[in-house]
Amino acid sequence: MTAIHPFDQAIAIEPAGPRLFRATTAPAYGMMVGPFGGFIAAILLRAVLDDAERRGDPVALTVNFCGAIGQGDFDIATKLQRAGKYTQHWSLELTQGGETKATATVLLGVRGDTFAHEAAPPPDAPGPNTIEPTPAFAPNTWIDKYEFRFIEGGIDFPVAPFESLRSPRTLAWVKDAPDRPLDYLSLAALSDTFFFRLLHVRGAITPNGTATLTTYFHGTADEIAAQGTASLLGAGDANRFNANFHDQSFRLWGASGKLLASGVQIVWYKE
Amino acid sequence: MTAIHPFDQAIAIEPAGPRLFRATTAPAYGMMVGPFGGFIAAILLRAVLDDAERRGDPVALTVNFCGAIGQGDFDIATKLQRAGKYTQHWSLELTQGGETKATATVLLGVRGDTFAHEAAPPPDAPGPNTIEPTPAFAPNTWIDKYEFRFIEGGIDFPVAPFESLRSPRTLAWVKDAPDRPLDYLSLAALSDTFFFRLLHVRGAITPNGTATLTTYFHGTADEIAAQGTASLLGAGDANRFNANFHDQSFRLWGASGKLLASGVQIVWYKE
Repeated sequence: MTAIHPFDQAIAIEPAGPRLFRATTAPAYGMMVGPFGGFIAAILLRAVLDDAERRGDPVALTVNFCGAIGQGDFDIATKLQRAGKYTQHWSLELTQGGETKATATVLLGVRGDTFAHEAAPPPDAPGPNTIEPTPAFAPNTWIDKYEFRFIEGGIDFPVAPFESLRSPRTLAWVKDAPDRPLDYLSLAALSDTFFFRLLHVRGAITPNGTATLTTYFHGTADEIAAQGTASLLGAGDANRFNANFHDQSFRLWGASGKLLASGVQIVWYKE
Repeated sequence: MTAIHPFDQAIAIEPAGPRLFRATTAPAYGMMVGPFGGFIAAILLRAVLDDAERRGDPVALTVNFCGAIGQGDFDIATKLQRAGKYTQHWSLELTQGGETKATATVLLGVRGDTFAHEAAPPPDAPGPNTIEPTPAFAPNTWIDKYEFRFIEGGIDFPVAPFESLRSPRTLAWVKDAPDRPLDYLSLAALSDTFFFRLLHVRGAITPNGTATLTTYFHGTADEIAAQGTASLLGAGDANRFNANFHDQSFRLWGASGKLLASGVQIVWYKE
């Protein structure tokens, strides 16, 4: 008997009508308040990838977090807005208790053989096995579902405000824990494993939450399958913290050195 | 009598029902095929900002280009998905001839006084008046609605394939032409004034088009108003060109040195 990986348990969805699915929050992928955003991103993407008319692989996924998602059941409605020769555009709504809690758009693309160029090779980094994984260190359950090996800009818990501001930049090896072969769904969730940059800059966080998260998938299905259970090299950074909102960007390179995903999120924060 | 700026003529919308607007493509903001994407981004944003229930300023705008928009009328439907104390989430659909040609989501935020930090100061650049503007140089009408003063990675027309690949990075001063005081709408359009990175890398382009464009607005309304008609410093870059899709990112700093907007688009390309 093979144990089901906690991520696969978490992202289970049940058909509840035409392009309507029922799902439930996963205690294993929780934040202090509500579910881990990466879990929501992955389960929304899944509702599209499982569709019989789905054509192509994920190219872009934008998730807008509209309101607090409570523990329990929620519904996902998907709509195929447009199907072309090369792309499909989907829109999604996540509702709970009759309220829209998240919206999303998914761009799928049929990928072929074209000019290719890697304009952003991975930064130099010591191999993952030369760095100790960060011990489980916070009350959010999602954190120990990932293995972090920080190369630059790590986090020490318990957090304490820094005397002077630090760089928002981090570099870390990251992967699912326990091991799980990479696919587009876990890559969508990994996009949200970069801690709030406010914490990296100030050493403290005030009430905050992700307002919108976009992931761009650069890797083909073959490249993602080739990654297996190896660690990805993740770089996080931010541009500006201003008037209740800050951005933060990420890039995730595979073991081959190819960029598999990148993206941006906007975080709302108080004070 | 004051002449109406071509941008304001272009982004005119007429109410056509509850949260439904009628608009028309603007020959002045055209591409070889269809309208300039920045014009579409701006007119979609406008449909939200003009709403009586609109609260807050733009924080994020994602536009998904689903199908070719033909010359002529089109409709914009807006939906307020969720209104909270700090944010509003809107979803939009642009239809033409009964088909969805674009979808969008808009995040508005109520901005207040918080911790602030500029983690990405503008790169060193000579002032705009020390650089000659690039002459109008291409058949797309939108191009001469902007003034470009390239500092790094300019474009020479007619284009010819480079002998070896060049960097996707550009740095340029850019603004509306003729002058127009900056607002969120023109900033949304300026987000799409970064030429396809494929052209910067190869010196040639194959059939291509923007599939999705996201703009993050970092500047407050006061900061944007303070910009007036000055040039913005724009940096464009890209990470990866692979299997029919590439990303490209941009940052736009105001004359004060503050980052007013940043964003990413995904471009579909052939060959």
